[in-house]
Amino acid sequence: MSSSIMHDEIFEQPAALTRALTEGRSAVTALVAEAKRRDVRYLVLAARGTSDNAATYAKYLIQITCGLPAALAAPSVHTLYQADVDYRGALVIGVSQSGAGEDINEVVARAKKAGALTAALTNTADSRLAQEAEHTLLCHAGVEKAVAATKTYTTTLALFALLAAEWSGHNELHRGLERIADVAAQALTVEAQVQELARTLIHAERILTVARGLHLCTAIEAALKLAETSYITAQPFSSADLLHGPIASVAFNIPCLLFAPKGQTAAGIAEVAGSLRQKAARVLLLAGGDTEGAAALPLADPGTELLSPIVDILPAQLLAYHLTLARGLDPDNPRGLTKVTITR
Amino acid sequence: MSSSIMHDEIFEQPAALTRALTEGRSAVTALVAEAKRRDVRYLVLAARGTSDNAATYAKYLIQITCGLPAALAAPSVHTLYQADVDYRGALVIGVSQSGAGEDINEVVARAKKAGALTAALTNTADSRLAQEAEHTLLCHAGVEKAVAATKTYTTTLALFALLAAEWSGHNELHRGLERIADVAAQALTVEAQVQELARTLIHAERILTVARGLHLCTAIEAALKLAETSYITAQPFSSADLLHGPIASVAFNIPCLLFAPKGQTAAGIAEVAGSLRQKAARVLLLAGGDTEGAAALPLADPGTELLSPIVDILPAQLLAYHLTLARGLDPDNPRGLTKVTITR
Repeated sequence: MSSSIMHDEIFEQPAALTRALTEGRSAVTALVAEAKRRDVRYLVLAARGTSDNAATYAKYLIQITCGLPAALAAPSVHTLYQADVDYRGALVIGVSQSGAGEDINEVVARAKKAGALTAALTNTADSRLAQEAEHTLLCHAGVEKAVAATKTYTTTLALFALLAAEWSGHNELHRGLERIADVAAQALTVEAQVQELARTLIHAERILTVARGLHLCTAIEAALKLAETSYITAQPFSSADLLHGPIASVAFNIPCLLFAPKGQTAAGIAEVAGSLRQKAARVLLLAGGDTEGAAALPLADPGTELLSPIVDILPAQLLAYHLTLARGLDPDNPRGLTKVTITR
Repeated sequence: MSSSIMHDEIFEQPAALTRALTEGRSAVTALVAEAKRRDVRYLVLAARGTSDNAATYAKYLIQITCGLPAALAAPSVHTLYQADVDYRGALVIGVSQSGAGEDINEVVARAKKAGALTAALTNTADSRLAQEAEHTLLCHAGVEKAVAATKTYTTTLALFALLAAEWSGHNELHRGLERIADVAAQALTVEAQVQELARTLIHAERILTVARGLHLCTAIEAALKLAETSYITAQPFSSADLLHGPIASVAFNIPCLLFAPKGQTAAGIAEVAGSLRQKAARVLLLAGGDTEGAAALPLADPGTELLSPIVDILPAQLLAYHLTLARGLDPDNPRGLTKVTITR
């Protein structure tokens, strides 16, 4: 396999996950203890780009496992409209690998003043975000050099999963996290198959990525990875929303990447796969469990679907990488992008 | 102009807005009174498709004007994962024109059991959603027959604006709502210009719709309308997120519909317009106020940008309609769609 920074960082993920979960543990425990002491009633997650996709995972996971409402912030409410929002009873977590985004910092600063407990989830210990927040959860992913974020995404998911496990005392989550690095390593063994799949997509102008519920983050992040590196027009959909209109625009031979990990969403995704095949779309199923037989690519099984998003994105990262190479482009230098995007 | 159900319903909107705001008022007042009596601390909005785009407006508007956190629900948390979420202190509003979506009904039913104050925002008085919720806000839009929702979208926005006005005592909102029907009628006078613009897009395979903050709902709803009727590949973006990756996939001559109503987001949208022009994209600016001179289409001015989304979607609805006709398609019969989509 040819090498690049992005490729190296994709394969650093099993080790990075281990570091995040061991070195990051005490900070998670401390945050959960204070959140319970202060009777936190709901969570708000403030993020942009890849970090926002990671926050989407947390939005579902925290509600499912902790029974607390969890929501994505709208940073411009504060940065453009200077609104004072009453955050008493909230835990507000700013999520940013660089910790340099001014808008996320502003949300956290305002939330702290408005009575929230605040935390930073970042890969940069001395960032402004970490200074602003009362608690800091560190990815311990090592410096991420590629413009397309990979290891900071999966370590962020892992820290959210650890947070949910500590908060809820969920045994399946704890047990699954103990072996998640090994499952990630296994998920990366599909590289040769992914490379072959990438070759069949060289001339595709458009691709749909589809998942549901807890796994929506995987569809959104896969679309972002594909778009920012290979320049394909990638549209992420919840399988539930796809049927509310957008399916009308699906035409002959459009490749559709469907994520169907073992669990509650698999049956619904199989149904959507049927509807898409009826429209003669090209269904590419990434599946675990029972439906694996019909799959274009197998998904690794972390023992509980609650952790699947951490490993299911790996074949999609590889696909973005290999499609980019197959198109004669440089995955390490997407046009018009820089590593840190500042939103004013 | 040629006629169709969708076209008729687009032009029914000024009258429908008047009905929603007059006939709907007492229900809004009653809901706000009970919410304050019960010390509601935050709002959760549960919706799908077009209704979810309307809820996105409310998410911003409620936070900006009422200073209360407002969030979009993740229905599958309840329907697929059977999670019990602690909704004490929440007002949970189910939004659905038909009121028939089982998943939204389930969110409302569970929220009521879990301690939330609940409301339905629907166009169907005898729907299950209305029966399930403690309060009902009715669109009074009349039966909507076209598959592509138009008048139920704008009347839903108007009811959310009325809710925000009553809750916050915001004078600008109240004053603006008094004349919003007239401003909507004015917004529809651009039809001839829109028809001309539609002709230039006949062969476009892809279009981007871009807005920011409070106006994000307009970009998302415009993309949905365009995709479900004309089958163009339409991708909505927050201008803040577009720079985090997706801009890499923007290529020569791609039409980009930018919404720049007068207000806090106009400067940022102008900046993004510059970046897109540098990439030789075809920038189509819908603008009000100072930047109107450079605009492809003017936006009507409701006096406060807080109400702009109610009228800014109208030229986009007309564009979807005329692009569909120009392509020789039937706006009243999008392939593969039905009026009520049931998500299980």
